[in-house]
Amino acid sequence: MSLLVVGSVALDTVETPHGRVEGILGGSAVYFAYAASYLAPVRLVGVVGEDFPDEYLRFVRARNIDTTGLVVRRGRTFRWSGRYQGDMNAAETVTVDLNVFGEFVPVIPDTYRESQFVFLANGSPALQRHVLRQVPGAAFTVTDTMNHWIRDARAEVEALVRETDATFVNDGEARLLTGEANLVRAGQRILAMGAKYAIIKKGEHGALLFAEHRCYAYPAYPTAEVKDPTGAGDSFAGGVMGHLARVGKVNITTLRQAMLYGTVLASFTVEDFGLNRLARLTVAELEARVSEYRDMLLVSHEGGAQASMGRGGGG
Amino acid sequence: MSLLVVGSVALDTVETPHGRVEGILGGSAVYFAYAASYLAPVRLVGVVGEDFPDEYLRFVRARNIDTTGLVVRRGRTFRWSGRYQGDMNAAETVTVDLNVFGEFVPVIPDTYRESQFVFLANGSPALQRHVLRQVPGAAFTVTDTMNHWIRDARAEVEALVRETDATFVNDGEARLLTGEANLVRAGQRILAMGAKYAIIKKGEHGALLFAEHRCYAYPAYPTAEVKDPTGAGDSFAGGVMGHLARVGKVNITTLRQAMLYGTVLASFTVEDFGLNRLARLTVAELEARVSEYRDMLLVSHEGGAQASMGRGGGG
Repeated sequence: MSLLVVGSVALDTVETPHGRVEGILGGSAVYFAYAASYLAPVRLVGVVGEDFPDEYLRFVRARNIDTTGLVVRRGRTFRWSGRYQGDMNAAETVTVDLNVFGEFVPVIPDTYRESQFVFLANGSPALQRHVLRQVPGAAFTVTDTMNHWIRDARAEVEALVRETDATFVNDGEARLLTGEANLVRAGQRILAMGAKYAIIKKGEHGALLFAEHRCYAYPAYPTAEVKDPTGAGDSFAGGVMGHLARVGKVNITTLRQAMLYGTVLASFTVEDFGLNRLARLTVAELEARVSEYRDMLLVSHEGGAQASMGRGGGG
Repeated sequence: MSLLVVGSVALDTVETPHGRVEGILGGSAVYFAYAASYLAPVRLVGVVGEDFPDEYLRFVRARNIDTTGLVVRRGRTFRWSGRYQGDMNAAETVTVDLNVFGEFVPVIPDTYRESQFVFLANGSPALQRHVLRQVPGAAFTVTDTMNHWIRDARAEVEALVRETDATFVNDGEARLLTGEANLVRAGQRILAMGAKYAIIKKGEHGALLFAEHRCYAYPAYPTAEVKDPTGAGDSFAGGVMGHLARVGKVNITTLRQAMLYGTVLASFTVEDFGLNRLARLTVAELEARVSEYRDMLLVSHEGGAQASMGRGGGG
């Protein structure tokens, strides 16, 4: 089914212990769309400036991504520059220049309006809501948010949590949003705030899925190659939503499967700078790692017998 | 099979956002032994002072724990006092008084010498080695260690990693021991140093198992009740070793099962101060949570079919 993402398209400068890259393609909507495109057709809404390189546009269009909703405005593209150190679990933002993204009011093209799966990436809650109103028939809507919106526009963020089907946040955002230090309680609080589902992303420590009063924990796929964590969270969300859009229904079973795709797509993203690793990824590689990850999590019963008999999968 | 633990027996004072307790029973060998005792008979070697309360001795003996090797020395028992804040993932040590533990030279009682599974908890590498020499017929030996031994006695710690079958460390210790920030690389380095198996404990973020050039990641069991994380790592190790001693063999299959028991026993430990939660635990509750955790990790294939056919458990 159709998957729509609205969010930032950026030119990133990133420094990690493994090197430094300048002006590479980034932004939450781009990482989301690129990861999701392995699983479902994606429609992207965003804005770039006149300085946005044509090659980046061609690079995105070469995937399963519709860029009808990517508008070019007079001015410069959103630029972010960040640095990772030590265990690289947290980015240190060096500079942010919103540029054309600062004035952006997203308009959903007519051809996108019947989108069934909608992901509201990084953006002000007012604009996220503005997008929601343009896709009234969506079957499954998800809001992401950031610390500064929770701090500066808490009531609007809380309204979005209620009005969308699911909330995806990272651990720090979950704690700030709910006032709970314990992440299981934080997730339960997000459900109590009115979300049907919640996902808390923990970077290198994996993710938690909250659904129907239960919590499901997933470790990150263990990779020895972590060159650049930028975009891991958005790739994760893209993998989750891409799988859901592909199977066309959202329930505990499909959500738990979707967590595998999110985890594995994020694990590929971090293996190289920017979108370099995803650009080389094949569907066969993706499915092989999902299988491997699923098998890693499958622990046999006593005596080596497989977990095959009389076991419900619904947790 | 017989399981031996050598390590500290302590009187702890602990403060967390949920309260403060003074002079409660603690120590790495105690948490290890108490957790393991749900799965296998345990033999404990340690030292206490004359101030050690009789009721604590009775409390330990009421479980499946042989205390022949617990000696009483003139002086005071090892005392540790610590504090947890925020997400409670790291203890801040307020005071440490080694007391009789500072002079302790462990002697393995004759009745313990044929022990097959041996866990060298918290202690100097010289003493851990001294213990190893007293159990030459052990089938599976594990060393734990701490940051200050890695810093002050690196060569001896490295020798122990080589001479025992497995090394269990936490994330910070793994990074310090190997110089690798990435934990997957750190675990691989520990295997390269001569360990057959390695486990890296990540507190609330779960644990990694390294075996035969592969890494298996496990999330912590998601619990909303975290009152006191003290002893979680040692309970985890007790659960892992208790399961291995119970099944009497160590291979990838039994190790992966053992990770479930370690994870779940740690999750019970943190739900109350000290050993309060484990003291109330029943074997039925333990097995129920292990099943629930195993089911949580079992993600079905497309269409909701269970992961039941043609799937090897060896990863």
